[in-house]
Amino acid sequence: MSHRSDWFRSVLDEAESNIRKLLKIPDAYHVLFLQGGSSLQFSMIPMNFLRGRKLEATYLKTGYWSAKAPPEAGFEGAVKILWDGAEGGYRNLPEQYELQIAPDSAYLHYVSNETVEGLEFQYIPESKNVPLICDMSSNLLSQPLDVEKFDLIYAHAQKNLGPAGVTLVIIKDELAQSAPEKLPTLMDYRTHIKAKSIYNTPPVFSIYTLMLVTRWLLHEVGGLEKMHEINIRKAQNLYEALDSNSGVYQPYASPACRSKMNCAFHLKDEQFYEVFFAEARDHNIMGLEGHRSIGGIRASLYNAVTENDVDCLTAYLQYFAQKSH
Amino acid sequence: MSHRSDWFRSVLDEAESNIRKLLKIPDAYHVLFLQGGSSLQFSMIPMNFLRGRKLEATYLKTGYWSAKAPPEAGFEGAVKILWDGAEGGYRNLPEQYELQIAPDSAYLHYVSNETVEGLEFQYIPESKNVPLICDMSSNLLSQPLDVEKFDLIYAHAQKNLGPAGVTLVIIKDELAQSAPEKLPTLMDYRTHIKAKSIYNTPPVFSIYTLMLVTRWLLHEVGGLEKMHEINIRKAQNLYEALDSNSGVYQPYASPACRSKMNCAFHLKDEQFYEVFFAEARDHNIMGLEGHRSIGGIRASLYNAVTENDVDCLTAYLQYFAQKSH
Repeated sequence: MSHRSDWFRSVLDEAESNIRKLLKIPDAYHVLFLQGGSSLQFSMIPMNFLRGRKLEATYLKTGYWSAKAPPEAGFEGAVKILWDGAEGGYRNLPEQYELQIAPDSAYLHYVSNETVEGLEFQYIPESKNVPLICDMSSNLLSQPLDVEKFDLIYAHAQKNLGPAGVTLVIIKDELAQSAPEKLPTLMDYRTHIKAKSIYNTPPVFSIYTLMLVTRWLLHEVGGLEKMHEINIRKAQNLYEALDSNSGVYQPYASPACRSKMNCAFHLKDEQFYEVFFAEARDHNIMGLEGHRSIGGIRASLYNAVTENDVDCLTAYLQYFAQKSH
Repeated sequence: MSHRSDWFRSVLDEAESNIRKLLKIPDAYHVLFLQGGSSLQFSMIPMNFLRGRKLEATYLKTGYWSAKAPPEAGFEGAVKILWDGAEGGYRNLPEQYELQIAPDSAYLHYVSNETVEGLEFQYIPESKNVPLICDMSSNLLSQPLDVEKFDLIYAHAQKNLGPAGVTLVIIKDELAQSAPEKLPTLMDYRTHIKAKSIYNTPPVFSIYTLMLVTRWLLHEVGGLEKMHEINIRKAQNLYEALDSNSGVYQPYASPACRSKMNCAFHLKDEQFYEVFFAEARDHNIMGLEGHRSIGGIRASLYNAVTENDVDCLTAYLQYFAQKSH
């Protein structure tokens, strides 16, 4: 089957159309399906919007993931870290008043949700006239979004969108057209705009599955307001289970920055980890190990995790807390 | 499921091990699973092996596909087209004596099989001490290969390897280490060597399916010698059907350069195209339309096409020839 067939075009078109409906994306934005994940976006963004310019690109360094972006920009030009949470162990996010961005910045880049530490921005940073670029890999399509506040939004698929292999990019035409003339063809957003995401063979299976996921969100879940309500209930349920057993569990993120997508926490008594993971497996709860950078426990609550799944987890957390007390 | 799980590591390891066995790859070469297709390799290769060097990169321009590579190298340095088949309409490939490569070339890049025109190199060009780089997207794993003649071989998956989304790279360690110090992380082959193909989330489904394909080649087909025998029979069968009806069909490629993977041909009488495609569909034969650049008809004979499939096609070609005579 050709990726230039009418059938595959209809898959791409439905995926785009569903995403436009879900996020209410204005016409001034293109919806693109690329490859390479967020890691390639870390490079493409400065190639397109920093290279050859006498401006600084501004980055927020708010966790393990977002810290990977500024070095890639450093290959292309000057970089300013406007806010750095490393010293505090990435337990907090900046407040709006802390973000005084230079008006001649090339762009402001941030990550809306830090998967490792479980931090989620509860507001959209004000960037004034500076183009606002956001990596939403881990919370796009988990809630409604005011796309017009942004100039470029991107997300790899493998959290809420579909299987790994495709990267969703929502880019304002004005920003895309501001890139320098000569860029490697595949690194130039205009290539993909012009070719409607089939300049070269796209990751067809990942896109097909992403299309099915957007169809499910739109027609079965009933839109992002509904998805958001579900995600809020899931997160509240989980954090309540932790907070009501504060003698046993220690959430990693400051309460004001808690993520609805990823919840990282530690056991107050280190000797219980082995039993915790072993008994969790006995309860058919897998993959709770925290990221190697901070250890401990992490539960992810992406769209595909049901309220019933979270009930199972919180029941286990209650059981384990009572038992280990 | 984490791409860093033991299970997915075992998938990657088996895929690599099967490919090493099938192609008898020496230890001095790394086997990598990347993203972005051959199009991204067109950019990565000059970034790694031409950037910042006062040398020319040498390219063979032998068809619609290979013609896309040199402009990407032009972004990084000087490019020499050693042989250009454009004037002849890409019906021929160069012979060895026509390829006198400058000994101080950065590398020699060519495409072993041109899918659009149906041209396939029947020999490996002699590059002396110049690193030899080959895009084998459309014929890798279709026949045995002397990997040691090459410094870098790459292939996107969607011809003989598996579903689109993963790009196989076989690179000699010595070449990979010769790249400049500072490259965008994801564009640096050393990143993927060091991270054993999981620097970032790989296209897991495509890699899993590729692993199954290599398992099939190794254990069910019985290796590349066997696959080659089948592919030779398929191609002979098809070209014989065309040659024995030379009043009706006109193969595109010169006989000496005919590809075993793609056969492009025209009808001598233009008015029969509509009937040809319509009746083919009635016989359940789809996707025979030639590439827009040369029109006509194209039949691809990748590994997944069975001898029985080719028998159906040649029976139709015979039927149509008799009918239209």
